[in-house]
Amino acid sequence: MAGVLARRKRPLLAIPLQISRFRALCENAGSRAGVSLIQGASRGLGLEFVRQLLERNAKDFVVATCRNPVKAENLAALKEKYPDRLQVLGLDVTDEDTIKEAANQVSKFHGPLELLVNTAGILHVENLVTPETSLSKLEKDALLLTFQINAAGPALVMKHMSPLLKSGGSREVPVIANLSARVGSIGDNKLGGWLSYRASKTALNQLTKTISIELARRRHPVACVLLHPGTVDTDLSKPYQRNVAKEKLFTKEFSVSKLLAIIDRVGMKDTGKFFAWDGQEIAW
Amino acid sequence: MAGVLARRKRPLLAIPLQISRFRALCENAGSRAGVSLIQGASRGLGLEFVRQLLERNAKDFVVATCRNPVKAENLAALKEKYPDRLQVLGLDVTDEDTIKEAANQVSKFHGPLELLVNTAGILHVENLVTPETSLSKLEKDALLLTFQINAAGPALVMKHMSPLLKSGGSREVPVIANLSARVGSIGDNKLGGWLSYRASKTALNQLTKTISIELARRRHPVACVLLHPGTVDTDLSKPYQRNVAKEKLFTKEFSVSKLLAIIDRVGMKDTGKFFAWDGQEIAW
Repeated sequence: MAGVLARRKRPLLAIPLQISRFRALCENAGSRAGVSLIQGASRGLGLEFVRQLLERNAKDFVVATCRNPVKAENLAALKEKYPDRLQVLGLDVTDEDTIKEAANQVSKFHGPLELLVNTAGILHVENLVTPETSLSKLEKDALLLTFQINAAGPALVMKHMSPLLKSGGSREVPVIANLSARVGSIGDNKLGGWLSYRASKTALNQLTKTISIELARRRHPVACVLLHPGTVDTDLSKPYQRNVAKEKLFTKEFSVSKLLAIIDRVGMKDTGKFFAWDGQEIAW
Repeated sequence: MAGVLARRKRPLLAIPLQISRFRALCENAGSRAGVSLIQGASRGLGLEFVRQLLERNAKDFVVATCRNPVKAENLAALKEKYPDRLQVLGLDVTDEDTIKEAANQVSKFHGPLELLVNTAGILHVENLVTPETSLSKLEKDALLLTFQINAAGPALVMKHMSPLLKSGGSREVPVIANLSARVGSIGDNKLGGWLSYRASKTALNQLTKTISIELARRRHPVACVLLHPGTVDTDLSKPYQRNVAKEKLFTKEFSVSKLLAIIDRVGMKDTGKFFAWDGQEIAW
């Protein structure tokens, strides 16, 4: 994939081409496999997105980012299985320089993206963040950290990666999909609690909606959607699964297959919308 | 006001009262004037809230908070006019200790609150925050600062002040009113831009909605509402007034009189809602 794009750059400008050769190149470009970037891919839903994208199409290329590639054993195992179709890059959503560097790497070596999925997010962090059961437990540092990772992080990734989303490849349009959560809905909020997590996802919803308006106006428009994966059996939800009915606790495999089915159908008519795993739209 | 409450505390417990004296005290308590706290009161809408509350009722007591009381000349002028009915306290929404100290001061010297209005907010700060006209202009530090002041700040003020909201005084219930903005609505977002400001107000909406659910369950319930003041001629809107039709640019006096009229009517049926200056509910 990277090779095809690297080869295309100079010859098209520097060497006169016969029309038949030019046509062949264009056709090749048109049917080329897509490049997807999954941010927050070392575990949980992010890792599962990488796995399913690699598994379901023998041509697609995936860039998987995580904070510490050296420690990302599950990504290393996938890299062994798909050595030519997976690139793992370091990216920490709290460090804008790493986002910029990852975008430069993608731009230089992997060409345009057709899909960006932002999955990194926190609900609890040992000794730092605990979902609040009451207002009295609201802690400034936990609130700000949650906002920084869950809302500011994906927005900064969109800032640096969105210029790379130019063509949909096999898709109708290039897509940015951000993992949100139903508890981020204000209209659907009946229970209260989890102040930091809720507010961070609500802010992410507004940031994504705002960015979707700008990216719809571009010469190469990009569709942006928000996705609620359901309650999925991951490290994030582990401490809060006790009261979840068994049939409502999804496996990563099920949730991601549903979310990819939504992403595959996204067109510009869907941009700026918030979908649950079952395709139902969620109120703001 | 402060004297009345201070006097009430001990005698009721320590000295046996004749029934007639007890009745007189209760009646006095029932008709007593209320204490309102206006956070962010040195200028703009906050200052105008203080002025109108003091002017319209000769009994009401107002606690006005601002970052630097020494420099708050307009509050000092009001203090000269209403020496017995206004207390100015230092409170910086980015410094939780100052919020806690202000709450202690109110608790010790001014008794229960019937109204808390959070007005402090930023849209632009010289050399630090400029409302973004495109995603490429999103700056991490500006986004985080805007979130901290516009969303985390009021939430932390609610955390420390809400235990003091016990009785509505002349109101049906005690009220927390947070100044939001229509651009914080996701559903109403058609234009894009102003990423940091929009997301901070959306987060404030979710925080307020979440807190409203908890405070409605308390033994002494508190109503929490979000208010959109319209586009008002203040320092905040000054650089952005050019494209606002003259009849849509409100004076502070007009906007605050409309908002106070809404606050005066608030009951528990309204809690967790988002109202514009004209009383119309705004979509999330």
